[in-house]
Amino acid sequence: MGVLSDELREFLDDHRVGVLATAAADGRPRQSVVYYVRDADADRLLISTESKRHKARDVVRTGWASLCVRGDEQPYPSAVFSGAAEIMSEGIGPATAAIMQRIAGTAEPPEPQTDEALAAMDRVILAITVDRVSAVNYMQSAASDR
Amino acid sequence: MGVLSDELREFLDDHRVGVLATAAADGRPRQSVVYYVRDADADRLLISTESKRHKARDVVRTGWASLCVRGDEQPYPSAVFSGAAEIMSEGIGPATAAIMQRIAGTAEPPEPQTDEALAAMDRVILAITVDRVSAVNYMQSAASDR
Repeated sequence: MGVLSDELREFLDDHRVGVLATAAADGRPRQSVVYYVRDADADRLLISTESKRHKARDVVRTGWASLCVRGDEQPYPSAVFSGAAEIMSEGIGPATAAIMQRIAGTAEPPEPQTDEALAAMDRVILAITVDRVSAVNYMQSAASDR
Repeated sequence: MGVLSDELREFLDDHRVGVLATAAADGRPRQSVVYYVRDADADRLLISTESKRHKARDVVRTGWASLCVRGDEQPYPSAVFSGAAEIMSEGIGPATAAIMQRIAGTAEPPEPQTDEALAAMDRVILAITVDRVSAVNYMQSAASDR
């Protein structure tokens, strides 16, 4: 079943950007705003990035990432989703297309590209398998740091 | 002059919540959504929290924090502000009142409380002296990882 409640799954699907945090080589958190999509078959969050980016290199080095998602209106419902993370370059066409769909806000995703075409653009998928939800605020199931 | 451009100062003043990141004891980033106010006299970002919170203890231990602020509409302008951080408990009435004003959205701040009254509620100010701005996106001065 995983750690995500139906409410949290719906919250993730209703939003499309979050703040990714990875641990930099100096031990400090590195943050950036990213689009994501939830992998419906698993409690995984998928982010499209480039393998040369600091965030991707942090994940290769540490195997971990977290994503903080918040609503856009007060009281700003929010939660932090964290867990083991990896960089994927195979079979990533559909996930990449799903993220592009959320960026564009279209009804249907674009035609998935091949792994070869994505590799030519250095595109990879940063995948977080969520094993912890923390700092849950202003949601029905809110229980901070549970 | 500091590291903040006029555009970044205005961006900070136009928004009121961000994602704070601190380094937890295990070396992983810890994130949470917080209200903040910019200290106009210095390139400092001020956050009201409690001394017993993990984020406050992280700052005491590491002396560092970052805050990621993003706009609420696509393309989601954003930037990450980081630097030396400290926990303050003296002379924090006006800053705490300024943050409460931003939470409430009122025209004027509430009457500042005394340090003693704030201490009784465990309230402290987490202050970040910004010495680096990174991941600047969708702003005129955008220059990611500058």
